[in-house]
Amino acid sequence: MELDISPLAPAQFAELNPVAGVDLFTAPIGNGYKGRNNLLLAKLCEGTKVAGVFTTSKCASAPIDWCKAHIANGTARGLLVNAGNANAFVGQVGAETVEQTAQAAAAFIGCTPQDIFVSSTGVIGEPLDPAPMMDAIGQLTEDHLGDYEAAANAIRTTDTYAKGAGAVLDLDGVEINISGIAKGSGMIAPNMATMLAYVFTDAPVSAEVLDQLLKPANQSSFNAITVDSDTSTSDCCLLFATGQADIEPITDINDPRCALLAEALNAVLHDLALQIVCDGEGAQKLITVKVEGAVSDESADVIARSIANSPLVKTAVAGEDANWGRVVMAVGKAGEPADRDKLQIRFGDLLLTEQGRRSPHYKEEEASAYMQNDQIEIGVDLGLGDGTATIYTCDLTHGYISINGDYRS
Amino acid sequence: MELDISPLAPAQFAELNPVAGVDLFTAPIGNGYKGRNNLLLAKLCEGTKVAGVFTTSKCASAPIDWCKAHIANGTARGLLVNAGNANAFVGQVGAETVEQTAQAAAAFIGCTPQDIFVSSTGVIGEPLDPAPMMDAIGQLTEDHLGDYEAAANAIRTTDTYAKGAGAVLDLDGVEINISGIAKGSGMIAPNMATMLAYVFTDAPVSAEVLDQLLKPANQSSFNAITVDSDTSTSDCCLLFATGQADIEPITDINDPRCALLAEALNAVLHDLALQIVCDGEGAQKLITVKVEGAVSDESADVIARSIANSPLVKTAVAGEDANWGRVVMAVGKAGEPADRDKLQIRFGDLLLTEQGRRSPHYKEEEASAYMQNDQIEIGVDLGLGDGTATIYTCDLTHGYISINGDYRS
Repeated sequence: MELDISPLAPAQFAELNPVAGVDLFTAPIGNGYKGRNNLLLAKLCEGTKVAGVFTTSKCASAPIDWCKAHIANGTARGLLVNAGNANAFVGQVGAETVEQTAQAAAAFIGCTPQDIFVSSTGVIGEPLDPAPMMDAIGQLTEDHLGDYEAAANAIRTTDTYAKGAGAVLDLDGVEINISGIAKGSGMIAPNMATMLAYVFTDAPVSAEVLDQLLKPANQSSFNAITVDSDTSTSDCCLLFATGQADIEPITDINDPRCALLAEALNAVLHDLALQIVCDGEGAQKLITVKVEGAVSDESADVIARSIANSPLVKTAVAGEDANWGRVVMAVGKAGEPADRDKLQIRFGDLLLTEQGRRSPHYKEEEASAYMQNDQIEIGVDLGLGDGTATIYTCDLTHGYISINGDYRS
Repeated sequence: MELDISPLAPAQFAELNPVAGVDLFTAPIGNGYKGRNNLLLAKLCEGTKVAGVFTTSKCASAPIDWCKAHIANGTARGLLVNAGNANAFVGQVGAETVEQTAQAAAAFIGCTPQDIFVSSTGVIGEPLDPAPMMDAIGQLTEDHLGDYEAAANAIRTTDTYAKGAGAVLDLDGVEINISGIAKGSGMIAPNMATMLAYVFTDAPVSAEVLDQLLKPANQSSFNAITVDSDTSTSDCCLLFATGQADIEPITDINDPRCALLAEALNAVLHDLALQIVCDGEGAQKLITVKVEGAVSDESADVIARSIANSPLVKTAVAGEDANWGRVVMAVGKAGEPADRDKLQIRFGDLLLTEQGRRSPHYKEEEASAYMQNDQIEIGVDLGLGDGTATIYTCDLTHGYISINGDYRS
């Protein structure tokens, strides 16, 4: 199935600086993608530190098990990713495949297999043959070592465009580079799956600090997006620091340089996360749900997700229908503290409801005109406390049904 | 928008016995439905007892507030329902409309307004004008007093067929009748909304026992269905007992006759609930999700709902795709105890997975053939404990998107 490029796609792939200590290799390995490079190997210099966050699925894939087992070491020399087969739910053979391919990558790079991080994305339940991957690793050439767009393309499945984002910052007078790639479209899907993100920096940062930087950045980016409320068996975000930038190592999260680094990292992850939502299966509109005035941030988060995951809200946006009654419904069903008569709902800057009824300032034609935008903000103020949350999603269209339902496997 | 009748609709409306003490009146009141009776008034004889369950929405409609305030009395003389306007989220005027229309119904019947139970279904946020309802109540005629199909038609919104179910049982040598009607399609929708169910019996049952019978029956029927995971502001199920059958009153849930009554009531509510799922917006297939082997019934329920609400599972069924990988995903994301390597997944009687991988007995063509049925059973055995749950849903098709997204309000 050929998919049209999402109307929300960026005009072009981000301009990303090379990150010293990172060499990118890509190669074709089949798995349903003929004539396309769908294997990525990132070779990382000695001394590279790593932190990661992984799917909370109870049915995680074999590569996730592998990465979780080794992430605490905090050291990495390679990242190996294949697209087309998730190596998930295939029994013990899944772990064996990960080990064999990690060994091949380790032999190529000259390190232990434990320092190779592995991801697979694609069909669930089909055994993944390690042989083509091992053959490909043995034949890698140094053609596109700094080509992040080629790397982002290699990890695509149903993604309609390659996703990249980066930042450049100054620490101690030295230029620090952050370059990241991601993939994701539906949270999971048949011959395709998963949200993956890999971010590289040349800053010298300890594994512990990387972890402390990654977790909050992930929370406000990848954990703040939803396409269809479905969670992959293979979701993974890894942050690598090669340490090639010539500054004093950062080993304490209270180091003042961490604030700058965190700001840049947050921006990169946020950008990548929005690129994933904008490539949500069938997406025509980007929806930002902002909840404030909840009794706590956690409560705001539950309400924001209730709105962002509501099929009725998402189809209303698809139909350019200013149907705020469905937002009332989604707030009401969330089960969190809410007072109908204090609830304020906005679409963009337009106040739709106040005091438990339609606002007297509401004008149907203004609301309808607003809904024609390709970026829609739904604002909810519960009027109860200081809790806030922002969640990003996309509309639910015929395209989603076509991609996920209009065929037989 | 004219909707085709659901392919899962019953061949005809159920044959329902009249229930002594219940007179049904219908009338047209406009609200977007020209030339159609969309007001129902059920006149109940003196001594009628009532129990009810209501939406858990924090943004409940004005009629729900009214019913909740009076249900503890346990007495009823009338039921007033309008279709076309939900009288929800309209501020204080909503409560005034309920009170005025309840007063009109009470005057017609000759009782206090507190004994009139009121439901409204339809558009949210539009003030409901009480005048046409009050006028219609004053002009009701005794044309269709025992016509449950006319009553079921009067409360329809996007429903593509009228829903009724009944039972006849013998208690102490006397024929006891149970006759019920319901409406529901999407859990809520723009010019239409909500699941409503009203069940009448001539058995003499105390309000306390009615409540004890209704709650478990509701749990395994209406609370076990999901079309789109969205919960209306107006959901309501009421059980009325007129006491006209000439047997000793039932005032204790341990009365042995309660077991027979419970069995019949459970069957009626289950039938009505399945009729609602089979009329789910765009439904082409009825899906039964049976989970067993969970650590508890509650855990099984969470997992079953995770599967039944997954857009990817529902689109796979729509596409007749035996995509059990999506069931693995939905189990994994539920957050409940699960062991990938103990998980068994069945479609009907076909075992698809065992020991953390595709079953060696799996035959793609058998599974694909099974998916062509219009009733699909997804079975999951977690292999961990004795917890079970069954949830009913329908597939997610282009019809759902068309009904909810293909127009502007």
